[in-house]
Amino acid sequence: LGKSNTKFEIERPLICVQGLGFVGTAMAVAVASAKDSQGNPLYNVVGVDLPNPVGQKKIDSINSGVLPLETVDQKLIDAFNTAHTQGNFLATSDTSFYKLAKVVLVDIHLDVDFSKEEPSIAFSGFKGAIKTLGENILPECLIVVETTVPPGTCEKVVAPSLKAEFEQRGIESEPLVAHSYERVMPGADYFASIVNFWRVFAGVSEAAGNACETFLSTVINVDEYPLSRLHSTTASEMGKVMENSYRATNIAFIEEWARFAETVGVDLFQVINAIRKRPTHSNMRQPGFGVGGYCLTKDPLFAKLSAKEIFGLEGMDFPFCSSAVATNNVMPLVTLQKIKDHFDGDISGKKMLMLGVSYRQDVGDTRYSPSEIFVRAARDKGAEIVCHDPLIDYWEELQTDVHNEELPSVDSFDAVVFTVPHREYLELDLAQWLGDSAAIIIDANCVLSDEARQQIKDLNKTVISIGRGI
Amino acid sequence: LGKSNTKFEIERPLICVQGLGFVGTAMAVAVASAKDSQGNPLYNVVGVDLPNPVGQKKIDSINSGVLPLETVDQKLIDAFNTAHTQGNFLATSDTSFYKLAKVVLVDIHLDVDFSKEEPSIAFSGFKGAIKTLGENILPECLIVVETTVPPGTCEKVVAPSLKAEFEQRGIESEPLVAHSYERVMPGADYFASIVNFWRVFAGVSEAAGNACETFLSTVINVDEYPLSRLHSTTASEMGKVMENSYRATNIAFIEEWARFAETVGVDLFQVINAIRKRPTHSNMRQPGFGVGGYCLTKDPLFAKLSAKEIFGLEGMDFPFCSSAVATNNVMPLVTLQKIKDHFDGDISGKKMLMLGVSYRQDVGDTRYSPSEIFVRAARDKGAEIVCHDPLIDYWEELQTDVHNEELPSVDSFDAVVFTVPHREYLELDLAQWLGDSAAIIIDANCVLSDEARQQIKDLNKTVISIGRGI
Repeated sequence: LGKSNTKFEIERPLICVQGLGFVGTAMAVAVASAKDSQGNPLYNVVGVDLPNPVGQKKIDSINSGVLPLETVDQKLIDAFNTAHTQGNFLATSDTSFYKLAKVVLVDIHLDVDFSKEEPSIAFSGFKGAIKTLGENILPECLIVVETTVPPGTCEKVVAPSLKAEFEQRGIESEPLVAHSYERVMPGADYFASIVNFWRVFAGVSEAAGNACETFLSTVINVDEYPLSRLHSTTASEMGKVMENSYRATNIAFIEEWARFAETVGVDLFQVINAIRKRPTHSNMRQPGFGVGGYCLTKDPLFAKLSAKEIFGLEGMDFPFCSSAVATNNVMPLVTLQKIKDHFDGDISGKKMLMLGVSYRQDVGDTRYSPSEIFVRAARDKGAEIVCHDPLIDYWEELQTDVHNEELPSVDSFDAVVFTVPHREYLELDLAQWLGDSAAIIIDANCVLSDEARQQIKDLNKTVISIGRGI
Repeated sequence: LGKSNTKFEIERPLICVQGLGFVGTAMAVAVASAKDSQGNPLYNVVGVDLPNPVGQKKIDSINSGVLPLETVDQKLIDAFNTAHTQGNFLATSDTSFYKLAKVVLVDIHLDVDFSKEEPSIAFSGFKGAIKTLGENILPECLIVVETTVPPGTCEKVVAPSLKAEFEQRGIESEPLVAHSYERVMPGADYFASIVNFWRVFAGVSEAAGNACETFLSTVINVDEYPLSRLHSTTASEMGKVMENSYRATNIAFIEEWARFAETVGVDLFQVINAIRKRPTHSNMRQPGFGVGGYCLTKDPLFAKLSAKEIFGLEGMDFPFCSSAVATNNVMPLVTLQKIKDHFDGDISGKKMLMLGVSYRQDVGDTRYSPSEIFVRAARDKGAEIVCHDPLIDYWEELQTDVHNEELPSVDSFDAVVFTVPHREYLELDLAQWLGDSAAIIIDANCVLSDEARQQIKDLNKTVISIGRGI
């Protein structure tokens, strides 16, 4: 372990977290925060990421006591600071730490490859990471896959891969593989969404399931949020994928109603708020700008890809999941179409200010943001887009600078498009900011209150709202 | 009013209920149960149905003190008995009662005509009923449409029709038209689902909305279940249709997962139970035999039909709603296919016992029952089906006698298909009943517990369960 500058002063069982993304980092903090009945930390935690610039930046950040992600959740920040101070959370790119681990949590990405006509599972990075574990871990080390994976992955890919490496190493025992899915929700309750939330898990073997249960029970508040153990890892993997597919489908379901409401003069938000009072319908989604983020944009395809690539089944089409992804993908273009309609079909040369770049309110994450789809299409039609987002300063995907402090003056714009309900936009003094600008206002994501919209109308300005026909 | 033998001993404002079906009858009982602060009945209620044998049977039943529907809800029975005893609920086919009504609740059917290639709204009966009201009601009578109708119906069909009749009669005032949708759920909480549940409503005019609010507040427990007033009747109509479309879509969504789970060895019920612990996903549906009843089978088509027939809009396709109806319609055939697969593709001459005829557990309603689709298709393939249902003795739609007392001996059957989780079936002593019969058991609707299924397997019998791959 000489390469690394990471060492722990107190000896405790070592838990490794493979992958320091939005889930892995927060999970590592949660594990480092686990305490015994005397209030002493239970584990030493090592977060392992790749030895590339992005990975090394996170590693350095963690080791210097700075949480490597933007968050508004003070609990996560406090828990990280405590772990840093007590010295039981370090990060490294040195995979030899896996040799000492009691548990490895797998929190790396598993993407869908959209580059060809038919999407496929982009398995190589994931498989490589599992192989690395197989080359290093102790026979009795528990592998807990938290990554959202196509159902069947633990049984058909992870366990066989580890087993093959074990055989190479002359180890006869079965690897201990479990799947447990997180429901991390970056935002105000980021940390609580790990430790104070229901967990589903299963082991490939009875022993792996038992070990996973024991471990999770030390990290999660299982008294208030009892664990759900399923009969197989395929069932657990299916749970996560189905859960996100349900959400994506329920978002897509709203689209046809939004267009109908806009056309026949109905405020669909008012309708949905009334429907939501019925407890069985309280999770109905609202019209919006689009669906982004790492999960809902790809997870609904995992069942179909699993059937095809993991189980070799023909003709399993998952029509609702596929339609959901397709519908959600083109959702941002609905807003663009409304703007085009307003400008008689031609937005070439029009200057637009887009307020909101990230995929979700109060989160600084641009992955698969619907704003990206919107901006690419708008630029394609000759529009000039200026972007603002209080939580983003540079937009990687579009290699574009983003205004993130004061709002620019609205005077030079033909249109202002509200795309993300960030706190800053909800609190905006609209009338003052808009002044006597001639820009049209597009509320693509229920950013403006009834009062704010009325204010704009009172100023004799045009306001177009997604999902509202009045 | 000489034709009718209905009269009230005490004078109170008269509320008419047009249509004595599952909604109208229960609603009439609820209105008759409304009391002032001294505990005295507020209204006299007249239920009006058609002068045909079915209508007359209901009318006679009500007037002789017998609730004209099967129910397990003692509260509804008690409330009906009280209304009968206190003499403020009568029934008639005499439409001249509308002449005296303060409020008319419209609870008649509005069907979709499926007889042609493209479904259409079967509007004639509904329009005729509204015309009858226009010919009779006082100018100040409030019409509350409770029927589930295509959005736009109150504004574009009901109000203009009443207005035309008013003009014929020389009445200048605008008719008072409101829409308020019930969420009646026949079953154990039938009565409570009217008076102790959230209501959505709107008026075509401000005055109609106000009158509707005043009236509903006397019938519904609005202190605990505040009313939701929407900006237009079209919005209220859309709410009901959207609510049921949401449910139908969420049922259909499960189908692709059920087939996947069955194929890859997963118990989808276990998965869904784990997912449901997450409050945002607690309403996820389960795999099942099919979708029946009067609402979910047609309501998801009403938005599309409204766009086309009421608003004259082209190209509004409602893909999720249409797919939901299509998927749900063929759901019972999945069970049939599994039986065929078991018998190597040929069920000709096979004798099957189907347990469950109604569309819903503990309800004696055969309208659009999935069992109907199943039986027709099975008979078409040469199978012989014997039907049992504790709540049905004669199956109108199939003109078939239904066993409704003791279960027949299983010995002569090749297959036993559980289609409805009626209480009687849940409590069945399976092992004893099955004995050493060779019949295969199909659990199409989660009727059998884990223990019951294990019991069957222990008897070395074949059990096929929809939604379970283990």
